[in-house]
Amino acid sequence: MHEPHGGRLVYNVIEDIDKAKSFWEIKTRLEIKPTLGPDGSPIRNPYREIMSIAYGFFSPLEGFMTRNEVESVLKERRLLSGWLFPFPIIYDVTEDEIKAAGVKVGDDLLLTLKGRPLAVLKVEEIWNLGDRKELADATFGTPEKNREVVRVRFDEKHPGWLIYRSMKPMAIAGKVTIVNPPRFKEPYDRFWMPPAASRKYIESKGWKIVVAHQTRNVPHMGHEMLMKRALFVCGGNRPGDAVLVNAIIGAKRPGDYVDEAILEGHEALNKAGYFHPDRHVVTMTLWDMRYGNPLESILHGIIRQNMGATHHMFGRDHAAVGEYYDPYATQYLWTRGLPSYGINAPPNKVDKGLKIEPVNMGELAYCPKCGEYTYLGMSYDDVKERPLCNHTPERISGSFLRGILIEGLRPPKLVMRPEVYEVIVKWWRVYGYPFVTEKYLKLKEEELEVRL
Amino acid sequence: MHEPHGGRLVYNVIEDIDKAKSFWEIKTRLEIKPTLGPDGSPIRNPYREIMSIAYGFFSPLEGFMTRNEVESVLKERRLLSGWLFPFPIIYDVTEDEIKAAGVKVGDDLLLTLKGRPLAVLKVEEIWNLGDRKELADATFGTPEKNREVVRVRFDEKHPGWLIYRSMKPMAIAGKVTIVNPPRFKEPYDRFWMPPAASRKYIESKGWKIVVAHQTRNVPHMGHEMLMKRALFVCGGNRPGDAVLVNAIIGAKRPGDYVDEAILEGHEALNKAGYFHPDRHVVTMTLWDMRYGNPLESILHGIIRQNMGATHHMFGRDHAAVGEYYDPYATQYLWTRGLPSYGINAPPNKVDKGLKIEPVNMGELAYCPKCGEYTYLGMSYDDVKERPLCNHTPERISGSFLRGILIEGLRPPKLVMRPEVYEVIVKWWRVYGYPFVTEKYLKLKEEELEVRL
Repeated sequence: MHEPHGGRLVYNVIEDIDKAKSFWEIKTRLEIKPTLGPDGSPIRNPYREIMSIAYGFFSPLEGFMTRNEVESVLKERRLLSGWLFPFPIIYDVTEDEIKAAGVKVGDDLLLTLKGRPLAVLKVEEIWNLGDRKELADATFGTPEKNREVVRVRFDEKHPGWLIYRSMKPMAIAGKVTIVNPPRFKEPYDRFWMPPAASRKYIESKGWKIVVAHQTRNVPHMGHEMLMKRALFVCGGNRPGDAVLVNAIIGAKRPGDYVDEAILEGHEALNKAGYFHPDRHVVTMTLWDMRYGNPLESILHGIIRQNMGATHHMFGRDHAAVGEYYDPYATQYLWTRGLPSYGINAPPNKVDKGLKIEPVNMGELAYCPKCGEYTYLGMSYDDVKERPLCNHTPERISGSFLRGILIEGLRPPKLVMRPEVYEVIVKWWRVYGYPFVTEKYLKLKEEELEVRL
Repeated sequence: MHEPHGGRLVYNVIEDIDKAKSFWEIKTRLEIKPTLGPDGSPIRNPYREIMSIAYGFFSPLEGFMTRNEVESVLKERRLLSGWLFPFPIIYDVTEDEIKAAGVKVGDDLLLTLKGRPLAVLKVEEIWNLGDRKELADATFGTPEKNREVVRVRFDEKHPGWLIYRSMKPMAIAGKVTIVNPPRFKEPYDRFWMPPAASRKYIESKGWKIVVAHQTRNVPHMGHEMLMKRALFVCGGNRPGDAVLVNAIIGAKRPGDYVDEAILEGHEALNKAGYFHPDRHVVTMTLWDMRYGNPLESILHGIIRQNMGATHHMFGRDHAAVGEYYDPYATQYLWTRGLPSYGINAPPNKVDKGLKIEPVNMGELAYCPKCGEYTYLGMSYDDVKERPLCNHTPERISGSFLRGILIEGLRPPKLVMRPEVYEVIVKWWRVYGYPFVTEKYLKLKEEELEVRL
């Protein structure tokens, strides 16, 4: 197993209840509030970042960034300690909030969630974010500055850009510590496996080679086949031992699959034996996706290396939305680096970079003539598309599948496992629709995934 | 592309017909005769070794080995130049043959095939092979001396052991040069692609990562799936570019597939588009299989590295017959070496070793529940069997398939592609039986694959 990113696993969680409770009385306190989009709908909840930092998913990051650290990240995607890190992680607030709480540098600031204590932020700096549009552009890149991979100027339709664009003007920087470890609701509870626990689990299973799969989808057959092929590939001299499925749980958009179905849909693959349970585990990370494609892939690498994975699958349009980035931008990064972002070699080849190794995946499609899922190739720069067979395989269209599901039709077995479909139906019954609706979004922000 | 084994491609072929003809008048001549088994049937024809040496398949080997070279090979599997090489390559003759031809050291000896000139052997040494049983044991190993991988003492039922056991008592060593390049008969002609030509072909196709597949079988679906997975695996960061199928053409045993069907069966896979022709090529090498499992895999590595492959598939029971070696002996070799044979690390990790990289493959089987070929895992030493799914996949049984074919039944599509089956039927019509018969063996030895 690789060591955690930065060498040490962060675990800023006070589990001793008496010790924890002493923090609950802190008077300087702020309620954690969601970031709101232009229409007032929640597009991010910083509690997820607090959880991911404190439980070590983002190791070696220990808290929210100072101005200098954000500048360093935007310049060369490195923390001040030199370790690779892709995104500014910012606790943004208004002037009014600062005044009302009376926060000042040096304070222990109690952050509350739905009025209950969650974490303490040791205030290191209070600073002004400046122009948030500039911050958002600098975070994701521009077609002029980042020609290798940025195809279209970012705008409000990009959910990640919109998060930075919508931040409040001020930022509070400093280390965060959970002082009231939340319990997860069902079904999240059984997928919550922070890095320390995940590493123990991998060790207990005797897995030496573990390939991580990023997901925010209920798995269709194409996903399953990609995971199986990646598992076969990742060991080099022998197949790998297991797939670590890690779902990103956070802000959703209408039309997305609901989080519960994503987690249980992947779980269904091992429950029904398509993966032996000794070769497959489903986990989750709290994070409001930034859809940063190659940049997001660095964060994914960090999270899963910290969780104990040795390899990471990167497919076409990895963590992508729209046409902002080249479809193979992530492979580009992991094959040669992204000099325009200050990353001159693949993230696992640079000094103070990651240890996790990429498994770059092309696209799979079903070929009725071959009677199997076959490989369509990949194409970026000098690596040319090379389809495997000489027939005309059919891509699984996500929108076609969506159409089938909305009509209430059972998808063909070649497209989705029946056991996975049953999971969709289960949550459809709960929420009245197979996909995320405005109502689900409202409920999700009200209820979150945890109980305090 | 890796450089040829030993750094330089051997090409001892005189193509200028006038220059070649000057050798045809040499008076010191010997007719190339097959090695005969105990029942008088041909089990090897040294013309195949002459061809493979002179055309560079066995580079850097330039001719038949001297006593010192054979001793070096048997001690540490290295030529006198230090380069890894697994088998003694011996031109064996009787005392009477030496006397009748009047051969002596320093002579140019003309070797004739079916009475026509084929090659000149520059006589460097004439030596006595001694006890051929000891030679055969030393070549393959014994359960006492080679505990890592030898399970059962070799005997006359092992075709490779029998070749060495059946050699004539004397040996003539020296460099060989083809002085009458043979033309191949149909269909062999279109699969004959010696290393120099094969390297050019690979370059012309723009292939950078090429995985070699060893075969002496008409491909069933399991073989196809293994090749496809190997192709997917071998590139590491991206799939490989092509599969180089290389059939070993030589002495057969009753019940084997006929050589013509093996070659055209593999070709059918790209003709019918299961492999895009830009990702697949079928070739052949003349060699009477020694069934040396891990040792044979070294020769396979040498041949295919010389042909320009960058990677080589090694499966369960690679080049195996019977239970003499551990089923995963070849993986053992390519993962840790075989110290008892003088090979202290994998063949591609030792000094003056190979450059070609192994792609170790487990076993595939069809899972009706998954609806696909799935992976059964592999198991050797501390690498434990790890099946991919949790159902009960069914292995393709070679003898079951054989039974179906003999009954004249068309195998299910899940077992064999219809286009491959048609090739079997085609050659069945020619030879009156779907497999090698005594009659085919006799014909094969009479006709060989070439015309002089």
